[in-house]
Amino acid sequence: MDLATIIGIFGGFALVLGAIAMGEGSSFFINIPSVMIVFGGTFGASLIHFSLKDVVTVIKVTVKVFTAAKISYDNTIERLVKLAEKARREGVLSIEREMEGISDSFMRSSIQYTIDGTQPETIRAIMDIELANLKDRHRLGQSIFIAMGAYAPAFGMIGTLIGLIQMLQTLEDPTKIGVGMATALVTTFYGVVSANLFFLPIAGKLYNRSREETLQKELVVEGILAIQSGDSPRIVREKLLTYLSPTHRRRV
Amino acid sequence: MDLATIIGIFGGFALVLGAIAMGEGSSFFINIPSVMIVFGGTFGASLIHFSLKDVVTVIKVTVKVFTAAKISYDNTIERLVKLAEKARREGVLSIEREMEGISDSFMRSSIQYTIDGTQPETIRAIMDIELANLKDRHRLGQSIFIAMGAYAPAFGMIGTLIGLIQMLQTLEDPTKIGVGMATALVTTFYGVVSANLFFLPIAGKLYNRSREETLQKELVVEGILAIQSGDSPRIVREKLLTYLSPTHRRRV
Amino acid sequence: MDLATIIGIFGGFALVLGAIAMGEGSSFFINIPSVMIVFGGTFGASLIHFSLKDVVTVIKVTVKVFTAAKISYDNTIERLVKLAEKARREGVLSIEREMEGISDSFMRSSIQYTIDGTQPETIRAIMDIELANLKDRHRLGQSIFIAMGAYAPAFGMIGTLIGLIQMLQTLEDPTKIGVGMATALVTTFYGVVSANLFFLPIAGKLYNRSREETLQKELVVEGILAIQSGDSPRIVREKLLTYLSPTHRRRV
Amino acid sequence: MDLATIIGIFGGFALVLGAIAMGEGSSFFINIPSVMIVFGGTFGASLIHFSLKDVVTVIKVTVKVFTAAKISYDNTIERLVKLAEKARREGVLSIEREMEGISDSFMRSSIQYTIDGTQPETIRAIMDIELANLKDRHRLGQSIFIAMGAYAPAFGMIGTLIGLIQMLQTLEDPTKIGVGMATALVTTFYGVVSANLFFLPIAGKLYNRSREETLQKELVVEGILAIQSGDSPRIVREKLLTYLSPTHRRRV
Amino acid sequence: MDLATIIGIFGGFALVLGAIAMGEGSSFFINIPSVMIVFGGTFGASLIHFSLKDVVTVIKVTVKVFTAAKISYDNTIERLVKLAEKARREGVLSIEREMEGISDSFMRSSIQYTIDGTQPETIRAIMDIELANLKDRHRLGQSIFIAMGAYAPAFGMIGTLIGLIQMLQTLEDPTKIGVGMATALVTTFYGVVSANLFFLPIAGKLYNRSREETLQKELVVEGILAIQSGDSPRIVREKLLTYLSPTHRRRV
Repeated sequence: MDLATIIGIFGGFALVLGAIAMGEGSSFFINIPSVMIVFGGTFGASLIHFSLKDVVTVIKVTVKVFTAAKISYDNTIERLVKLAEKARREGVLSIEREMEGISDSFMRSSIQYTIDGTQPETIRAIMDIELANLKDRHRLGQSIFIAMGAYAPAFGMIGTLIGLIQMLQTLEDPTKIGVGMATALVTTFYGVVSANLFFLPIAGKLYNRSREETLQKELVVEGILAIQSGDSPRIVREKLLTYLSPTHRRRV
Repeated sequence: MDLATIIGIFGGFALVLGAIAMGEGSSFFINIPSVMIVFGGTFGASLIHFSLKDVVTVIKVTVKVFTAAKISYDNTIERLVKLAEKARREGVLSIEREMEGISDSFMRSSIQYTIDGTQPETIRAIMDIELANLKDRHRLGQSIFIAMGAYAPAFGMIGTLIGLIQMLQTLEDPTKIGVGMATALVTTFYGVVSANLFFLPIAGKLYNRSREETLQKELVVEGILAIQSGDSPRIVREKLLTYLSPTHRRRV
Repeated sequence: MDLATIIGIFGGFALVLGAIAMGEGSSFFINIPSVMIVFGGTFGASLIHFSLKDVVTVIKVTVKVFTAAKISYDNTIERLVKLAEKARREGVLSIEREMEGISDSFMRSSIQYTIDGTQPETIRAIMDIELANLKDRHRLGQSIFIAMGAYAPAFGMIGTLIGLIQMLQTLEDPTKIGVGMATALVTTFYGVVSANLFFLPIAGKLYNRSREETLQKELVVEGILAIQSGDSPRIVREKLLTYLSPTHRRRV
Repeated sequence: MDLATIIGIFGGFALVLGAIAMGEGSSFFINIPSVMIVFGGTFGASLIHFSLKDVVTVIKVTVKVFTAAKISYDNTIERLVKLAEKARREGVLSIEREMEGISDSFMRSSIQYTIDGTQPETIRAIMDIELANLKDRHRLGQSIFIAMGAYAPAFGMIGTLIGLIQMLQTLEDPTKIGVGMATALVTTFYGVVSANLFFLPIAGKLYNRSREETLQKELVVEGILAIQSGDSPRIVREKLLTYLSPTHRRRV
Repeated sequence: MDLATIIGIFGGFALVLGAIAMGEGSSFFINIPSVMIVFGGTFGASLIHFSLKDVVTVIKVTVKVFTAAKISYDNTIERLVKLAEKARREGVLSIEREMEGISDSFMRSSIQYTIDGTQPETIRAIMDIELANLKDRHRLGQSIFIAMGAYAPAFGMIGTLIGLIQMLQTLEDPTKIGVGMATALVTTFYGVVSANLFFLPIAGKLYNRSREETLQKELVVEGILAIQSGDSPRIVREKLLTYLSPTHRRRV
């Protein structure tokens, strides 16, 4: 479970709601038509921009952001070094028996190719295609949230324009100007808050997750190819550590 | 038919119109000079930016967005695996007889090259040029909608500036200020709504369509080359599945 | 002559001027100091940004945008196929006699290299340098218009700021506020209109022209190299058609 | 210690605070809810966008910006030339004894690979991976500050919207309008100042630091490989000087 | 001396100052606190973003922009063709005697490498590194002006916010509103003018200078390598002319 995301969202909303509660007229900030324009409009624009399936996927992805386990480069390296030790002692084919304990399907298929005796350049080519397509799919998820983060403030502005135009027609009664403008601005408020406390940061999180997952998969490819070429466990570890920061290396 | 696009556009406009109808003075939102400035100006700027032919093409493209059949990677893979089976059993040349049933002209020409005995690298080179030029043409369509999505709010602002300047000259009668400003803002409203509920999301849809079509064509090239090189149907399927997401693979 | 550009500019300005004429106080929109700030400022900033020679070139380029003949891929392909036929029948050297009828200097020099017996890879290398430098020069023209399209609204804002500051000092007489603000806003109006109906769309047109010219020149290089390598006219045509859209191909 | 950064931040804030102190009502600029919304919101959004660990790292990075020693290309070149002299006189293996005096771990590991007799292309490949991963980690640090520099003004705007909406509801008492709007604008002020005097310039500094560190490491790789290939100290120096500006070269 | 830059800056400022002088209250536009916030703040942020040395370099660079001699491709080509003639007549080594008359240090070192008998690919590799590092240093200069062009309007906005907040607190006396707002807006005016008449156009000029200088240096590398490979003066000239526009070629 990703605590930072949860703290960030809850903390951010608590702050904004706290600031609202500290002033007068909090009930003003609840406005159904504003909700409908901002979130309905953003959802509608996203349905046109992407496909129904992609937008539905977003819900799954959002859940995953909150629940996914942290990626551990150390565990990946440990496991690969152990496979290298086994391969050294008992031959490359012996690592087949280790496959049962491995849940990572990317690592499993890399090992399978090695056992099948596939050429190193072929393994790397296949894995590169798979990585490129993985990044592509990740990018789709990010681009949905980025698009939503751009549409939400735009629909906020649309709602505010509607409110302003309606209010300005009845300018005869000056006492109503304030309330009219306040209502109009609530829609902009919804658009800016949802973009900056949800859509854009989640897009950023997906980008960073993708970066971590890709790096972890590159470690796997590099490690398996080193094992296949008969590198000693020490060299496998050293090769993989060049991918990590010096601070990280010292810790391992 | 692309339901998501239709739901998105109709739903989005229904929401915006609903919000207008809920307030007073809905008739205010219909303003012929505003329509002329925003859509006439956007169309004029697009005619300068692109050519008459390109802008006319856009109408065809828009129709296609609403009517085009969904691209199915599964069907493409199934068809290629069947061709691989036939090629295995009866020789590569036998797949010529299958060509009649294939409507996809890209797949047909790939097969034709294979039957003609063209070298694999030559086939890939030709197909790469064709793919690059296809992406280029797609990009032109997207760029027209992106340009329109930028010009529309700009002409909305131009209309609002005209309205404001005209209104400000007659400031002596303060009761008319509200109506004047409301009228001026309607043009901005048109520009922002058309950009965010039509031009920009359609540009996005075209981008995503292009991505899907390109991926499907890459599957075809990869599959035909695998068949030519004598890969077994199982390997053809496996090679192609690396292009899809793991969830997708399990389904196939 | 490029009708679309002329229709776009005249139509766009007619719409904007029509909207002005429909309201009161049209004479207000003619303001010499505003013209000086927006166009003088934009010209001054462009002189700093680029060089005097480059900015003067822009005038030539603008004239060319309105008068240049449309690029025809079909004519280019037809001509190359005819050269291929002649080369087939009478030998590659025979195409020298065709050079007189060719006005395109790029095609002439490609043919000259072929007749001189230059190696294919050398021809491609020279032509690639020439294409890269052509694109670079085109990009300079585009970047001048893009810069002007960014400076014009900025100087519009500068003029409006000057007007607002001058007006705000004399706020004692409230009847003058409206006229002062209207005058101030006219400068912003000039900046936004000139950017969106002239500078930015012309930059776009130059980009699209460059794309077309580059594609046509790529057809020439591809075609001449195919002729040199002895390809049959049918294969030359087929190779070149992969660069065009399927709809286009059927027409040829 | 990086004096420029300290002068920049303190000088910048002194100027802004001075301008505030010169006017009336300085106490107005201290507003706890505004601080909470801008910095709490920015921190919350960053926690979602990145991970807790990454955001904590930022504090370390910020400290490093103020305290890190300046990178000296001259020292690096001097040291490499001295190693080249030693290698010339006493053989490549002799430079092992110099390693103790070298604190730069990147240079140490390059030397180690050379002594181990690793192939030049292997050394370059390993070092390129390490450099690519170093740049990647640097980019993460920069991207956190850039994100904060975008979130801070957005939360400033959110705070101002909250203040405006609350103020507009109580418009009946016109004497309070000014104070309400002033309070609302303070939040925007916080967002814009923190972005432009802290987050964005620090992101820039990190980018420039990264550029310098990368160039210095490229000098090390180039120099060690030149030493390994037996280049004379004069040639090592000349090769390395091509990386520096002519003015710099004359100084060395 | 670069006349265009001087005409651009002086002409631009003359226009803006003229527009100010034509209205009332010109003295209003001179405001010391505004100058301090905009230029002090921009300078402070730049000191953090870059280093003291880099920001000082900017002053030198600015002077160079106004005084540097125009780069002449024709002179460069003429000189290289003459070297080619000499090399044809008297052997490559004879061009050593020409070196004294050459002030361009880049051309001198290219010739030196040729005389030393360095391999062509080595010369190109060294020259490519030097060109890449030159572009990098140029980019730093540009990025400082681009950053200043972004900070200046931001600090203009900060100053205006400070002024507005101070003014709004004393709203009781409505006659002072105008003067307060006018003063506040002067800071924005400073930020926008300095960005659009100085920082951004100078950044553009540096970019264009860099492009010209790089192209000239590419001509030198290409020419020297052609001379080394024994090309005739006619071929050297032809090779170099492919880098220039057709109009330019006809002139040479």
